[in-house]
Amino acid sequence: MDQKHQVMSTSAILSKAELLNHWQGHRRLTRRVIEAFPEDKLFTFSVGGMRPFADLAKEMLSIAVPGLRGIVNHTEDAYSERMPDITTKEALLSRWDEATPQIDALFEQIPEEDFHVTFNLFGQYNFPIFENILYFIDNEIHHRAQGYVYLRVLGIQPPFFWER
Amino acid sequence: MDQKHQVMSTSAILSKAELLNHWQGHRRLTRRVIEAFPEDKLFTFSVGGMRPFADLAKEMLSIAVPGLRGIVNHTEDAYSERMPDITTKEALLSRWDEATPQIDALFEQIPEEDFHVTFNLFGQYNFPIFENILYFIDNEIHHRAQGYVYLRVLGIQPPFFWER
Repeated sequence: MDQKHQVMSTSAILSKAELLNHWQGHRRLTRRVIEAFPEDKLFTFSVGGMRPFADLAKEMLSIAVPGLRGIVNHTEDAYSERMPDITTKEALLSRWDEATPQIDALFEQIPEEDFHVTFNLFGQYNFPIFENILYFIDNEIHHRAQGYVYLRVLGIQPPFFWER
Repeated sequence: MDQKHQVMSTSAILSKAELLNHWQGHRRLTRRVIEAFPEDKLFTFSVGGMRPFADLAKEMLSIAVPGLRGIVNHTEDAYSERMPDITTKEALLSRWDEATPQIDALFEQIPEEDFHVTFNLFGQYNFPIFENILYFIDNEIHHRAQGYVYLRVLGIQPPFFWER
């Protein structure tokens, strides 16, 4: 097998654009989960002593754009989650929608050859960039699923998982 | 940009081996979640009218090896979830461990150039193979997170999410 063939064969799995699209599809679903919560329950209701869904969504927001910004600018600012201004569903959805094109723009700036470069995300998580980004997505799926349970306990039908 | 450079740049995101390793890492975590359940609660306990965690783990087992087998053999057998023999935690963990090398072996047989080929998984889900496989992983993260909530409600500390 010559070198070119090796390179072509490893390109077949997943492109950068597909990974971004995969993530944004999950973010569209998470947005629908936020929308499904009654306003008050979004900020107060939880199960098993876990955080209310608004706090989980704020965590996702605190990871996505700040994490990508760190990756793009090679800065290792610590993770921080300060969004005291977000106290309504409308404000949360509006922040969510602001992040969407920011994620697109920042992700676009990561050179493809950097995805295997190790980066110390938030000065704390020292992994290849592709692993950091998969972690962002995994973490969102994981916490969003908590929201599904909260909705079920509230008697509310959550959005279909496969709808993106 | 010449063609070779384009090809090289799209190869940078994620290799086939890395995707498999990512999935198996999630499977190791799911195994720890199964282990964390008390035997009886694994098969009976749930929250919000959802399925007990054993049923969710059986769903994962019904997708992983049968789904990969369909992809490898180009067969479109319908999804089926019949595991009446699994009634103990030990049997579930043993089936989980049986699936691990089967997943490795089947995944290995998918040619890299097939990941963008559209395949009608279980005769029902007509998507590129990379999307089908990402869906297997997403679905596992999603349902495993339900298990995290069940454990919290039971007063049991779940395994760390980042431990794979």
